[in-house]
Amino acid sequence: MDYIGIDIGGTSVKGMVIDEKGKNLAAGSVATVPETLAENIGGLVEKLISDANIKNVVGVGIGCPGTIDSAKGIVVCAENLNYHNYPLVKKLKEHIDFPIKITNDANAAALGEARFGSGSGYRNCVLITLGTGVGGGVIIDGKLFEGGKSAGAELGHMVISYGGKPCSCGRLGCFEAYSSATALIRATKDAMTENPYSLLWEVGSLDNVTGKTAFDYAPRDKVAKRVVLEYISHLGCGLTNIANIFRPEVIMIGGGVSLQGKVLSEPLQNFVNNEIFGAKENYAPVKITCATLGIDAGVYGAAALFM
Amino acid sequence: MDYIGIDIGGTSVKGMVIDEKGKNLAAGSVATVPETLAENIGGLVEKLISDANIKNVVGVGIGCPGTIDSAKGIVVCAENLNYHNYPLVKKLKEHIDFPIKITNDANAAALGEARFGSGSGYRNCVLITLGTGVGGGVIIDGKLFEGGKSAGAELGHMVISYGGKPCSCGRLGCFEAYSSATALIRATKDAMTENPYSLLWEVGSLDNVTGKTAFDYAPRDKVAKRVVLEYISHLGCGLTNIANIFRPEVIMIGGGVSLQGKVLSEPLQNFVNNEIFGAKENYAPVKITCATLGIDAGVYGAAALFM
Repeated sequence: MDYIGIDIGGTSVKGMVIDEKGKNLAAGSVATVPETLAENIGGLVEKLISDANIKNVVGVGIGCPGTIDSAKGIVVCAENLNYHNYPLVKKLKEHIDFPIKITNDANAAALGEARFGSGSGYRNCVLITLGTGVGGGVIIDGKLFEGGKSAGAELGHMVISYGGKPCSCGRLGCFEAYSSATALIRATKDAMTENPYSLLWEVGSLDNVTGKTAFDYAPRDKVAKRVVLEYISHLGCGLTNIANIFRPEVIMIGGGVSLQGKVLSEPLQNFVNNEIFGAKENYAPVKITCATLGIDAGVYGAAALFM
Repeated sequence: MDYIGIDIGGTSVKGMVIDEKGKNLAAGSVATVPETLAENIGGLVEKLISDANIKNVVGVGIGCPGTIDSAKGIVVCAENLNYHNYPLVKKLKEHIDFPIKITNDANAAALGEARFGSGSGYRNCVLITLGTGVGGGVIIDGKLFEGGKSAGAELGHMVISYGGKPCSCGRLGCFEAYSSATALIRATKDAMTENPYSLLWEVGSLDNVTGKTAFDYAPRDKVAKRVVLEYISHLGCGLTNIANIFRPEVIMIGGGVSLQGKVLSEPLQNFVNNEIFGAKENYAPVKITCATLGIDAGVYGAAALFM
């Protein structure tokens, strides 16, 4: 039995055929063109099947950015694609003869990472992706949890600092406003501006700051170290909230910042161990780990919608 | 078909027999004595069955304070009962011949309120109980969501104000530290201490302040009004977080504070409408309402564990 996953990104649509063990049998991509998306995905699916030389396709799973009504197969709102109440699954059925399921791209990534990445073997997992924003996906008892009308799991838009930093969603103090890569970069730049003698200035200018910069200089610069500690403390605060709400076996950190590996996950693990509800009893500990599938998590998870 | 619900409280154990429509067929209670709890519940169940004169008992559901391993039927930790890893269901089986299920008392209350109270007719509901602490329970697609190892849904211990007021759990800035009745009383007393000419002093002394006081004086006292506005703003912040995470159809407010009715629920509804993720699209609105079952929610929900 084989499964096809499709991950719709801002510039390209990726596709992959996997078997039930997650073995990659074929992969490919096409450019993201909103006007001809369904047709192009149809062509990609055809090519993947031909490349993988398979017959038993269980279904085609789709991960799509934006608010998705997965039950109805409708893209309620995806600004990047300029879709509003767009019946994507209906359009896809004109080009694809297999069963189709759709979910939000962050949810798909969580399912992929849970099934075939760092969450493999666990039934209850949460993926937090630290990128431009903070995306989240929740797996409960092996299944994707999407919330009512598949509009939940917006973990980045949980206020952790009442009246705090403004968030893109309009609220003040969201988890995302402190824990995204964007927030880390902004905090690094702010620290540089306030500390003209920091070693961080070795990068040349504010324009050269990335999500790596503060971590790179933390071992030998007090200002950088403070930025990292503040970042980890806010990130740990949000992760502990998530642990208290879902009590997953594992929280997986994805996105570029997660490439820091244990430098990131170990202090976060200590933070959560100390702050989690009922810490003393240690009844249901939560493991903090970095994701392993990288940008492929979404396409794996889309395929896993049929598993 | 009839169902028995048992709600273990700090001073008494309440029991009720209901039919599938939630009709109360018999009710009773016994004192809470941790040493003979199982035996006493056995006796209560026997009396309830006799009083209701029923034959088709589907099962006996138990709502118990503390951390409960519902799969194993074990009370992991309940400080009030001085139970630690206590096999309550096994003990109960020595006295009760029907199937037994157990859950945390806050979860039971949520299920009861969802099934037979203000959440009736909705598949996705959250109950937030504002009392000494802030308890929470989540119903997803008609079923109780307990989190991994049934240790989740600790919604009161979600930090909403990083580095803020100390919480009983050891963290700083928890939802509970701002939104419990205890927190409201403390805020009212603090405001009185800072404002010796506030009309709030008509209550006589700080000792007479309750969770009603600030609401009572808000229409004619600026200090009281500010206390209420601050309280609603923090409560609304936490409710919006919960809305973004679970996207329930309805959030039900329980506990003594909820007796304020629309004075509480209407401003909270406005707050959530404005702050919820994707507010403009209004794709999946969340209704804010006050609970209706009061202290009976738990016993109804315990019975509903078998529905």
